[in-house]
Amino acid sequence: MDLSSSDGELNDSAIFDEHDSEDVFRITVTTDNHLGFMEKDAERGMDSFISFEEALEIAKEEQVDFILLGGDLFHENKPSRDCLTKCQKLFREHCFGDKPIEFEILSDEVTNFGHTGFPRANFNDPNLNVSIPVFSIHGNHDDPTGQQNLCAMDTLAAAGLVNYFGKSNTSCDQGVNIVPVLLQKGCTKIAIYGLGAIKDERLYNMFEKGLVQFIRPAEDSDDWFNIFVIHQNRSAHGKKNYIPETFLPDFLDLVIWGHEHECRIRPEYNELQRFFVSQPGSSVITSLSESELEPKHIGLLKIYKKNFKLESVPLRSVRQFMMTNVILAESELNPADKNIELKIEQYLAKKVLSLIDKCQKNRYCYEKQPIKPLIRIKCDYTDYEPINEIRFAQKMVDKVANPRNILQFYRKPTEIKAEANL
Amino acid sequence: MDLSSSDGELNDSAIFDEHDSEDVFRITVTTDNHLGFMEKDAERGMDSFISFEEALEIAKEEQVDFILLGGDLFHENKPSRDCLTKCQKLFREHCFGDKPIEFEILSDEVTNFGHTGFPRANFNDPNLNVSIPVFSIHGNHDDPTGQQNLCAMDTLAAAGLVNYFGKSNTSCDQGVNIVPVLLQKGCTKIAIYGLGAIKDERLYNMFEKGLVQFIRPAEDSDDWFNIFVIHQNRSAHGKKNYIPETFLPDFLDLVIWGHEHECRIRPEYNELQRFFVSQPGSSVITSLSESELEPKHIGLLKIYKKNFKLESVPLRSVRQFMMTNVILAESELNPADKNIELKIEQYLAKKVLSLIDKCQKNRYCYEKQPIKPLIRIKCDYTDYEPINEIRFAQKMVDKVANPRNILQFYRKPTEIKAEANL
Ligand SMILES: [Mn+2]
Ligand SMILES: [Mn+2]
Ligand SMILES: [Mn+2]
Ligand SMILES: [Mn+2]
Repeated sequence: MDLSSSDGELNDSAIFDEHDSEDVFRITVTTDNHLGFMEKDAERGMDSFISFEEALEIAKEEQVDFILLGGDLFHENKPSRDCLTKCQKLFREHCFGDKPIEFEILSDEVTNFGHTGFPRANFNDPNLNVSIPVFSIHGNHDDPTGQQNLCAMDTLAAAGLVNYFGKSNTSCDQGVNIVPVLLQKGCTKIAIYGLGAIKDERLYNMFEKGLVQFIRPAEDSDDWFNIFVIHQNRSAHGKKNYIPETFLPDFLDLVIWGHEHECRIRPEYNELQRFFVSQPGSSVITSLSESELEPKHIGLLKIYKKNFKLESVPLRSVRQFMMTNVILAESELNPADKNIELKIEQYLAKKVLSLIDKCQKNRYCYEKQPIKPLIRIKCDYTDYEPINEIRFAQKMVDKVANPRNILQFYRKPTEIKAEANL
Repeated sequence: MDLSSSDGELNDSAIFDEHDSEDVFRITVTTDNHLGFMEKDAERGMDSFISFEEALEIAKEEQVDFILLGGDLFHENKPSRDCLTKCQKLFREHCFGDKPIEFEILSDEVTNFGHTGFPRANFNDPNLNVSIPVFSIHGNHDDPTGQQNLCAMDTLAAAGLVNYFGKSNTSCDQGVNIVPVLLQKGCTKIAIYGLGAIKDERLYNMFEKGLVQFIRPAEDSDDWFNIFVIHQNRSAHGKKNYIPETFLPDFLDLVIWGHEHECRIRPEYNELQRFFVSQPGSSVITSLSESELEPKHIGLLKIYKKNFKLESVPLRSVRQFMMTNVILAESELNPADKNIELKIEQYLAKKVLSLIDKCQKNRYCYEKQPIKPLIRIKCDYTDYEPINEIRFAQKMVDKVANPRNILQFYRKPTEIKAEANL
C-alpha cells in the first residue's frame, strides 16, 4: 500500500486504527475563539471563555500532541486586563502538566520563535512543564500594531504560554517568506506553514507578484505532510478582498482556514490544487447571521505520514442560535387592523417562542451550555409598520440572550446585509 | 549571646558571617519600579525597564532566596501591551531557572494566593521551575480596579510569574485582616505581612477605628521575624493623608515602606514602636524633585532568627540627576541690559553645563548607565523676565535627557511645589 499518496482524508480511517499512536500526530484544531467577545454583557460575557476552555478540555481528554490555533484568539486588539488574565490562567491550567511531549521539533527554533525573545518553543524550555503546546498565528482582530509591532499573542509568548509563529515581518511590500515549523513523531513528519492575518488586498497583490515564498525543507521534501494555517477572507468580498485557493501552492496537503466564522470543518477537496481545506469556524457566535447557524466544532486532526483524518468534535458549550424568516404580507395579519402593532408583536413573539422551544429540545446534556439561546427573526414588514422593539425586548429578556436585537426588519430581501464580525 | 533580642540592624554583621547561609534568608528588596514610566520617550523610555532588570540581575548574582516588591511595579494602572510583554519576559528570563528553593512556606497557600486562581505559590507549582520567587503587593499606580477588581499583578500571577499577596478584600470599610506569608529557612522563620495600597484617608480611618488586624501565627509567635510591606504616604501631606508609624503594631521588626520615592533605604529605628523602617525608594526617577536626588539603591536583606542586616546596593543603571538653585537677583546680570534675555540664557546654560560636567565625572563604569543626565535648574527670576524655554531646550537636546523641562522659574521660594509622582 502506497501510504505516501496524497489521498488524505479519502483514505479510510482504518489506517489510523492500524498504526501505533507513536507514529500518529493527534492535533486539536480550533480558530476564531474571540476571547473577550461581549465580555461586559451580563448574559453572554463568559461565552467565549467557556467554549475555549471546552476546547482545551477536549484537547486534554484526547491527549493530543498539540493545539493549533488559526488566529483571532482575542476579539479585541488590546484585550482587557480581565480577558488577558483569564486567558493566561486558562493556558497555565490546561496546557501545563506532566504529559510527556511525544514529538520533536526539527526546524530551527530561533527562526520560528526567536522574535518572542526566547530561543525555543515553550515545551523545550527546561523551566516550563508543558503538557500540550499551543501553536498559533495571529488574526486580524489580534494583529501586531504599534511601534514595537506587538500583539496580545506576544504577551502570551513572553510568559511561555504559547508558541507564536507566522508573524511575517513585512512592513514594506517586499514580500514574505513563510518558514514552516517542522515536527516529527515516529515516522510522521509534518511541516506547518503559518501566515498571520495581513490586509487581504496587500496579500493578494503579493501573491500575484510572486512575492509569497513557502520555504520548503531541503531534505526529503516529498515526505512531509504540509499544513498551511491562514487567516484571510476565503470567499470573495471584492475583486482582491480575499485569497483564492488557487494562489496557494499545490504541494500543500491541508489548509486550515481561519477568519471565516462558518463551521465548514469537514475538509473540502480542491480538485485543481489537489489539497484539502478545512475551515473550523469560530468557537463563539459573534454575529447573528446565517454563517453562524452551523453548529460549532473543533477538529481532532490525526496525521500518519502523508495521510490524515480530521474528526469534528462538537463544542457543546456554545450558546444555541436559531433564526427564521418572516414575511408579514404572507401572514393573515390585516395592516388596517387598529390593533395591528400588538398583533404583529404577538405573531412575532410566537415565532420566537417556537424557536426557543426547538432550542430547548435540542440541548446537549451538558451543564456548560447556556440556557438562553440567541434568536433572530428576519422580518419583511412590507405594507406594515415596524413594531416597538424596546417593548418586545422587555418581554423576551428572561428567555433569550439577545433581547435587544431579536428582530431585524427589512422591506426588500436585498436590504438584508449580513452583520460582519469575523 | 541572646540572638532573639530585637536589636536588629544594630547587631554587628558578624552574626551573619558566623552563621551558615542555610539559616539565613537573603532577600532582594525593591519598590516603585514604575515599569513603563515615559515609555514613549525616545530618550528615557527604557529607563524603568533597564533599572528593574539590573535589580533582577543583582538578585541573581546575590543568589537571594526571593525578591520582595513594595508596589508600583507598573507606572500605569493598565500597562501598555509593550510594557506588560517586556515585564513578563523579564520575570521569565531572570526568575525561572534551576536554582533550588532553600526555604519553605508554612502559611496556608490558598489563603495567601488563592485569589489568583491557583492554590499555591509559583515555586510550589510543579509545572514551573522557579529560581527566584517574587512576592509583591500592589501600589497605588497599579491597584485593582474594575468589576473583577483585578490589577496588572493579577495578570502576572495568572501566568505564574509572581506571588501576589496583600490584596485585601475591603470594598466596604469593614476593616482588613492582614494574613502573613510565613516562610522558614533552617532555624529562621519570617512572617511577611503585606497590604496593597489603599486610599490613605480610608486606611487612616480604619486604623483609628481598630479595624486593621494583623493575624499573627498562633504558634511560637515570638520566634518570627516580622516584616510589614506597606505602600502609603509616610510623610504627612494632610491631616489624614498618611499613615503614622505609630499606627503600626509594635511586634513588627522591620517595615518596608513603598510609595515614597526618596531612597531612605538605611533602616531607621522608631524608638516608640521599637521597629525599623526601610524606605527603598523608586528605581527610576519619576519627578525632578529633591526627593529623587538621593542615589537609588535596592536592599539586600539578610535575616537570621530575630536579627537582620540590610545592605544597600546601588542601582548603577539609574539615569543621573542633578539640580541647582539659581537666584538671578544675586547674579551680576542687569535687568535693564538690552540683551538681557540672551545673557540669562547664557548664564543658565553655564549652570547646566557645569552640572552635566559633574555628572560625567561621577559616572559609574557601567555600560547600562545612560549618557544624558536629568538636569533641573530652579531659577528665581524676581525682577527679571523668564527666557524662551523652547530655544533653551533646543540647545540642550543633545546633552540632557529632559531638555524641555530643565528650567523651573519661580518668583518666591514658596511658589515651588514639588512635582508629585510617587
Ligand atoms: Mn478574523
Ligand atoms: Mn474571527
Ligand atoms: Mn505609589
Ligand atoms: Mn511610586
